[in-house]
Amino acid sequence: MSDSLAQSLTCIECGAAHSLTYRLECERCHGLLELRYDITRLQKDGPALLQGAGLWRYAPVLPIGDPAHRVTLGEGGTPLLDCPRLASELGVRRLLLKFDGPNPTGTVKDRSSATAVGAALQFGYRATSVVSSGNAGSSIAAYSARAGLRSLIFAYERASAPKLLHMAATTTDLVIYKGVYDDLISIWDRLVEERLFFDCGASRNAYKQEGKKTLAYEIAEQTGWRPPDVVVAPVAVGETFIATARGFRELREAGWIARAPLMVAAQATRANAVARAFRDGTAITPLKIGYTVAEGLAAGNPGKKGDWVLRLLREGKGLAGDAEDDEILATQRKLARVEGIWAGPTGVATLAVLARLVAQKLLDPAQTVCAIISETGLKTEAEPPSRTGTAFDHDSLRRLVTERLA
Amino acid sequence: MSDSLAQSLTCIECGAAHSLTYRLECERCHGLLELRYDITRLQKDGPALLQGAGLWRYAPVLPIGDPAHRVTLGEGGTPLLDCPRLASELGVRRLLLKFDGPNPTGTVKDRSSATAVGAALQFGYRATSVVSSGNAGSSIAAYSARAGLRSLIFAYERASAPKLLHMAATTTDLVIYKGVYDDLISIWDRLVEERLFFDCGASRNAYKQEGKKTLAYEIAEQTGWRPPDVVVAPVAVGETFIATARGFRELREAGWIARAPLMVAAQATRANAVARAFRDGTAITPLKIGYTVAEGLAAGNPGKKGDWVLRLLREGKGLAGDAEDDEILATQRKLARVEGIWAGPTGVATLAVLARLVAQKLLDPAQTVCAIISETGLKTEAEPPSRTGTAFDHDSLRRLVTERLA
Repeated sequence: MSDSLAQSLTCIECGAAHSLTYRLECERCHGLLELRYDITRLQKDGPALLQGAGLWRYAPVLPIGDPAHRVTLGEGGTPLLDCPRLASELGVRRLLLKFDGPNPTGTVKDRSSATAVGAALQFGYRATSVVSSGNAGSSIAAYSARAGLRSLIFAYERASAPKLLHMAATTTDLVIYKGVYDDLISIWDRLVEERLFFDCGASRNAYKQEGKKTLAYEIAEQTGWRPPDVVVAPVAVGETFIATARGFRELREAGWIARAPLMVAAQATRANAVARAFRDGTAITPLKIGYTVAEGLAAGNPGKKGDWVLRLLREGKGLAGDAEDDEILATQRKLARVEGIWAGPTGVATLAVLARLVAQKLLDPAQTVCAIISETGLKTEAEPPSRTGTAFDHDSLRRLVTERLA
Repeated sequence: MSDSLAQSLTCIECGAAHSLTYRLECERCHGLLELRYDITRLQKDGPALLQGAGLWRYAPVLPIGDPAHRVTLGEGGTPLLDCPRLASELGVRRLLLKFDGPNPTGTVKDRSSATAVGAALQFGYRATSVVSSGNAGSSIAAYSARAGLRSLIFAYERASAPKLLHMAATTTDLVIYKGVYDDLISIWDRLVEERLFFDCGASRNAYKQEGKKTLAYEIAEQTGWRPPDVVVAPVAVGETFIATARGFRELREAGWIARAPLMVAAQATRANAVARAFRDGTAITPLKIGYTVAEGLAAGNPGKKGDWVLRLLREGKGLAGDAEDDEILATQRKLARVEGIWAGPTGVATLAVLARLVAQKLLDPAQTVCAIISETGLKTEAEPPSRTGTAFDHDSLRRLVTERLA
């Protein structure tokens, strides 16, 4: 396994470089930190640095030095699916879907859980914790179990049944919380300071976020280092968006790709603090939000990461948009019917936003667009079709088949 | 993409070789057919024949000639996970789990759906059909949608809610049937003869079964062409078992591996026609069965494929075993807690059977054992934990965390 080329934790505000310890903000200005790597080595060695399959193929650009800490359930290496029929329905020239449902726990979170729990091992922690609407909770719980660590998972009371079952099965300690994500996060984040557990939240931990950067590396590698013109990424707190944008920037700096894609931030209309600020050209105003079917996007106050997303959008001439719950559910059905891809509402919000931006002529349809589909549909809770079955004999079955397939 | 090296459909009973048309049994003796390949080419070219990732990496040993017919949702390339802590709990020297949950629809069925729907395109069909307890139904529906084909899915009335939702979302036509799998299969199989749809069932179609052979190729390649001593495969009708055993045999004939693993057939006790016949040294007596938590193994009459499994077991000095529903459910919980792998009851039956065979001293524990875990846990329907949530302030949250993580 290749060594990590991580060199520092650098403040995104003041540029101060810190050593690679467990640290959640800049000592000098309290700004957020991001990992920086030996770009010269990346330039010199090129993609030959990469070995093996899955997420840890990208170990040189991840911050876990010791192979013994590289916990894995087989995450990453997810398909990039060319979807010509859906592209034609949406009216874009070419549509690629980065389908992250086929990760071990069914979501993109497995990428960040691998590096978060890897970092927990690296820094000698015995317990992890996270506040979750469902996906992060079961993913962190699963990776903690795999690493032999305890986990304390705070799960949203409206999480779907499959998500709750999944969390209960994998965590050592499940606590159901009442109220919205944002409220609990703000007090939970204060406990992080006391170091009672390793921070597996999305707000500040650069080690955790880093795993999601592999989305950019995979998309670039799967397109022969000629990435799509546009990449649509979901934004709750902003982890997936920021990590993907940074991955592409790193790839361009390393000279592995010639040009970074234009980034689009996708939100649910019911939790659209970032998209709203982007449209209005203002700073972010935190929102008091309720339920959205895109459960994983239900953050009304994205905090400092929201500001970071906004800055990346403005610097990179990106776009932001949001979609209503009914558009998201219609997109879920369409994706399943037209391409056979069963993804959850959180996962298809990107596609619903893409459809809107194209319809509003905000996005040039003569481009290659990639949307990140962040979760499987298997965690969806909805009324199943009636289980009232029919018994058949040969004649009645034959009648039905000829009728239905006429 | 490499060309297919398929050469014939050969009868497993009389050895007659047929051309590569759509044919479900031997013209001469009505025996089952299996695909045969150009072994000389495999011997000569070696693994250099393989290109790309996922299931179609193995296109040279699959029967779909035209790359345009190689329908994909990104199946295959699933993780082979070394599980030292679970190995020690079970008392085996080394345990590898081939976890097929991270397939696009969450099951091993995606491997056979890719080649089944690929063959439907190859032979010019516009509609597919299958009778299913849930997994095959949603997989065939998804791949049919992806290929632009109609699908007529017969689903078991006790299928789990996530499976029903999945099928309803992806198929063009869902029919819920009353009664057991075996009864409907026998009359549905007669309709296959009329060619009203392409046969996507497990009983006879050699093109469909072939996709699952990639399990053997992947396990062999992931272990550096030194496969484990023992592979435990689930048996309902026998498709996964037979395909995996054949894959290893082919690899040995081609000289890519030195020795094929000993194969173990795993069944649910409530549907153990094959394991029972194996133990008793008799032919298979079809069973009238009811419900088992291992829904995907609920076949009481495995038909001609059951005989084939039995023959392979006896020729290869293999083993067969079964596990009770409560053992299967306990294994599901243990796997989630000890290794963070959330698999369904159907998926963990292999592991439950392995535990039994080791406890009964029927299997030498000083070996490397691989169990195929055939489905994700995300399709499990069970009572979720109570959603009664607690609201926290800083002090109550701090108290809870220090208490729980003490």
